[in-house]
Amino acid sequence: MTRTELIALVKRKRSLLCVGLDTELHRLPKRFRGEHDPVRAFNHAIIKATHHVAVAYKLNLAFYEANGSAGWRDLESTVAYLRSLGDCLIIADAKRGDIGNTARKYAEAFFDQLDFDAVTLSPYMGADSITPFLGGRGKWAIVLAVTSNEGALDFQFLPVEGGEQVLFARVMQRMAELGSPEELMFVVGATRPELLRQARALAPDHFFLVPGVGAQGGDLEAVLRAGMTKDGGLLINSSRGILYAGQEEEAIPKAREAAEALQRSMDKALRERGVVR
Amino acid sequence: MTRTELIALVKRKRSLLCVGLDTELHRLPKRFRGEHDPVRAFNHAIIKATHHVAVAYKLNLAFYEANGSAGWRDLESTVAYLRSLGDCLIIADAKRGDIGNTARKYAEAFFDQLDFDAVTLSPYMGADSITPFLGGRGKWAIVLAVTSNEGALDFQFLPVEGGEQVLFARVMQRMAELGSPEELMFVVGATRPELLRQARALAPDHFFLVPGVGAQGGDLEAVLRAGMTKDGGLLINSSRGILYAGQEEEAIPKAREAAEALQRSMDKALRERGVVR
Repeated sequence: MTRTELIALVKRKRSLLCVGLDTELHRLPKRFRGEHDPVRAFNHAIIKATHHVAVAYKLNLAFYEANGSAGWRDLESTVAYLRSLGDCLIIADAKRGDIGNTARKYAEAFFDQLDFDAVTLSPYMGADSITPFLGGRGKWAIVLAVTSNEGALDFQFLPVEGGEQVLFARVMQRMAELGSPEELMFVVGATRPELLRQARALAPDHFFLVPGVGAQGGDLEAVLRAGMTKDGGLLINSSRGILYAGQEEEAIPKAREAAEALQRSMDKALRERGVVR
Repeated sequence: MTRTELIALVKRKRSLLCVGLDTELHRLPKRFRGEHDPVRAFNHAIIKATHHVAVAYKLNLAFYEANGSAGWRDLESTVAYLRSLGDCLIIADAKRGDIGNTARKYAEAFFDQLDFDAVTLSPYMGADSITPFLGGRGKWAIVLAVTSNEGALDFQFLPVEGGEQVLFARVMQRMAELGSPEELMFVVGATRPELLRQARALAPDHFFLVPGVGAQGGDLEAVLRAGMTKDGGLLINSSRGILYAGQEEEAIPKAREAAEALQRSMDKALRERGVVR
């Protein structure tokens, strides 16, 4: 999905919502656990209930890998289902990052084998760990800039080279040299909106994937104010807040309600900002 | 495998060799490509030919993920085969790194589901992305410190905080606070032995996983001189230099020869250093 198509999708659905499919078998309602492929069945139900308001879906690889090759099949079938519906960006939240020949294999795994549109990447190994994911075929590299966890403080905020910049800002600067807003996004954590504002100043046109609204403590209104651009410019993820919004028979209807509530706030902000009418 | 067991293994096999199973279908000899599970069959043959001189095997996840759920099954069966043989550390070269709840899922995927002994991790997200892999159950976190690719220059050598330290040294310092030499190793690239010497000064007792001997241009003698400790202290990886040492019918015998040649150099260095007699 190209940037133009993504922006059109944001405007059509009046939404910046990314639904995070961090699906865990033991948290599923009983009726899904009885199915032959419980994760797959639950994912399909969540997607059906949220697709009208979601512009992206993000599959957290760890939750699938924890189920071995069966988990990998759930991944394949969930991506195939999303692809059949269309009208959404499909993100592998994989945080990969390795030398060139290995990075090319990961690009093959996520873009060719699994048909994802985008994959999250860790910048520590530098340029050649990122470039194999670029190239503007409607595929995206989404590079970690600043994250919302406690450990973010260990390295991402270290002043580098004379203290004029902190590490995450240097990462954004270098990565924005490598990848245009047509092919690269950044992960920018939502727990501190002032960071989102700083990041936006560094990369005014790149889309940001913002995890951490909901369970991780981010405040949606503050995120929208700090990060939105004239194109929208944000994909705001909610995982647990949607997947586990309700118990048992209430799970899917409550997931729909939670997603729709987020979309209503986004629609309001998009209107206020003039992105949509 | 505990540190004590690993050191005993190094001494028994008189080796620091890690064989990297970066197996690619299209590079396999014809007779393997004709098999029902070509990657599995080739891996088993390579393992059989090298197990007497290898103390570790490292499976590069990208090469398996590029084959989808079938690749994941190859991973499972290769680990199961290594486990059945014993006498080797089994490493997932995965370079994961994510927030706590996701890191726990990755630990589950690699340690419980797949039965690896160790997994490589990226430090960018800090402490809580690493701690779920620690705990001294004979399982290991292997954290990227300094890598051998060109992109390493982008961030790993940035002077941090007043320029007294570069980033990779800060990473090593922080990680060594988190994880003792019983549970944590570092990835230290081999293309520049002076770096290995610097890294060794920062972490005198931690094992280092050293990629980059062979195809990536590292010089084995220099690596051994710069990084060895009284316990050995190194796992030196060779992937392509062993897997693709020979063509067709020569592939497996040449792989054996390549591994044995590396082990002979290691044995010599281990004797000179007094690690073995």
